[in-house]
Amino acid sequence: MHTLVKRILAGDRRAVARAISYVEDNHPEKTQVLQDLFPHTGKAFLVGITGSPGAGKSSFVDKLIGYLRRKSLTVGIVAVDPTSPFTGGAILGDRIRMQDHFLDEGVFIRSMGTRGSLGGLARATKEAVRVLDAYGKDVIIIETVGVGQSELDIMNIADSTAVVLNPGSGDTVQAFKAGIMEIADLFILNKADLAGTEKLMREVEQMLDLVKHDAPWRPPIVKTISVQNKGIDEVWDAFLTHKSYLAESGERDKRRASHLREEVVEIVEYDVHRVIVSQLRDEAYAGVMEKVSRREVDPYEIAGQLLQQLLKGK
Amino acid sequence: MHTLVKRILAGDRRAVARAISYVEDNHPEKTQVLQDLFPHTGKAFLVGITGSPGAGKSSFVDKLIGYLRRKSLTVGIVAVDPTSPFTGGAILGDRIRMQDHFLDEGVFIRSMGTRGSLGGLARATKEAVRVLDAYGKDVIIIETVGVGQSELDIMNIADSTAVVLNPGSGDTVQAFKAGIMEIADLFILNKADLAGTEKLMREVEQMLDLVKHDAPWRPPIVKTISVQNKGIDEVWDAFLTHKSYLAESGERDKRRASHLREEVVEIVEYDVHRVIVSQLRDEAYAGVMEKVSRREVDPYEIAGQLLQQLLKGK
Repeated sequence: MHTLVKRILAGDRRAVARAISYVEDNHPEKTQVLQDLFPHTGKAFLVGITGSPGAGKSSFVDKLIGYLRRKSLTVGIVAVDPTSPFTGGAILGDRIRMQDHFLDEGVFIRSMGTRGSLGGLARATKEAVRVLDAYGKDVIIIETVGVGQSELDIMNIADSTAVVLNPGSGDTVQAFKAGIMEIADLFILNKADLAGTEKLMREVEQMLDLVKHDAPWRPPIVKTISVQNKGIDEVWDAFLTHKSYLAESGERDKRRASHLREEVVEIVEYDVHRVIVSQLRDEAYAGVMEKVSRREVDPYEIAGQLLQQLLKGK
Repeated sequence: MHTLVKRILAGDRRAVARAISYVEDNHPEKTQVLQDLFPHTGKAFLVGITGSPGAGKSSFVDKLIGYLRRKSLTVGIVAVDPTSPFTGGAILGDRIRMQDHFLDEGVFIRSMGTRGSLGGLARATKEAVRVLDAYGKDVIIIETVGVGQSELDIMNIADSTAVVLNPGSGDTVQAFKAGIMEIADLFILNKADLAGTEKLMREVEQMLDLVKHDAPWRPPIVKTISVQNKGIDEVWDAFLTHKSYLAESGERDKRRASHLREEVVEIVEYDVHRVIVSQLRDEAYAGVMEKVSRREVDPYEIAGQLLQQLLKGK
């Protein structure tokens, strides 16, 4: 067993930070670490929190952490910003607000940005979550700023996903557009003291009627005012209700099995990608690619040749 | 040569529509069609237009089409919505506004949505653009609603990309967040009669100072009021200036060569993906995946086994 894994299982906080850096940096020992951690994972409840920028996610998550700590649950947080590398600073700024929990050993917070990793941010997030899971955190919160496909991919890791909306922000249409409706297991109407809360509530209900009319689980809508610490308990209850639903319906095992299958595909594809790219970088291909640029050979033919070279039984 | 290709090269509009449907549906004859079309491509000027929903892209594009037609240039438009399948209707609604050009043989408009294709929307868009290129359109506009990674991937096809912004919409921060700053070759400040235009202009300039201070091309910022048909000519001039810059600097050939290389990688990966997924569906793997679910075997080990089975020389 990798020494880092021994240390993580023994509760060494710095080893956890190191292992997540391995994941981000694609460290040569990363796979070994993740393999050794794997048997110790699968126990945490994985909670996803998403919503557009400014919806008050960070402040909500901050309050949720406090609530869970009062219930003596340990919490891991992976905060993901799948946008420009230039925004690294912004989200780290947000995290500063979480310094309340900095000295609490029961909380582990990690921000992740795009490091332009070929393996992808969704994969790195999944692996960071796995480290925290093996570390023994009861609840792992995956928080992402999000409206695009990358965020949906990231949220795909969670057992239960909440979408945070705000009255008056035009959020419903946006959420609908981004396909977030399809991934929401519950809705949080934050800043519920603002005008337009009831209108937003009706809009979300209407969209649920449209999209989820025959689904076995209808996402509840919970109102919160996180700056006043209101509604946090109702949100947690809703998460637990969804957790029971997942367990009883067999949906949880089905989701997790499908995530693991996707993960195997991703790992293989990542390795294959490296092989292809290095083949194409080979000098033999420089001339061929020039012919493609001159339209003398087409990309499909080159791809076919590469496949023949790479794959067995082709 | 595929009969569809003969018909496209002869200017048959319906054959063009059919070929794009082949692309979207992953028709068995798609590759043959694209291979036969390939030698006839690479001539069109590929223009990307992106920006957040409501920025007035459709109305701008509508006016740009009119302008180009008055200059006797033929135009192809691929309008892409990389979001939920549920929004298909919305963007099609937008397209209705383009009916001005419906009877004009010099204009070909096609909307593309997520059909959940494994090949991905970016790839389908690229292939649709290629069909229009071979069809002989002088300018091909790739229009996308966008702030996320998928939109950036789509815009990667274009020679020159414009980002449409609006005063007072908080757009700059958003554009910055989404990494759009990095892909913009020019900025269009639409609705430039609204308050806040000068402020937005300064903000964009400041961000360009930050991001592009040492870049050989500094994206110009052009003000438009597309509903009044104002500024459209300046935008087109800016596109042409960028086009000359690309040609003279050798950047155009470099970009296109790199796009073709990426395309080869994508085609190979797509085929490999299908092979992996079908392998995992094999009964032999059902039992193995259950072991993974029970944490008895880890995903990395299974991935390694799959790679060994698939790849030569492993």
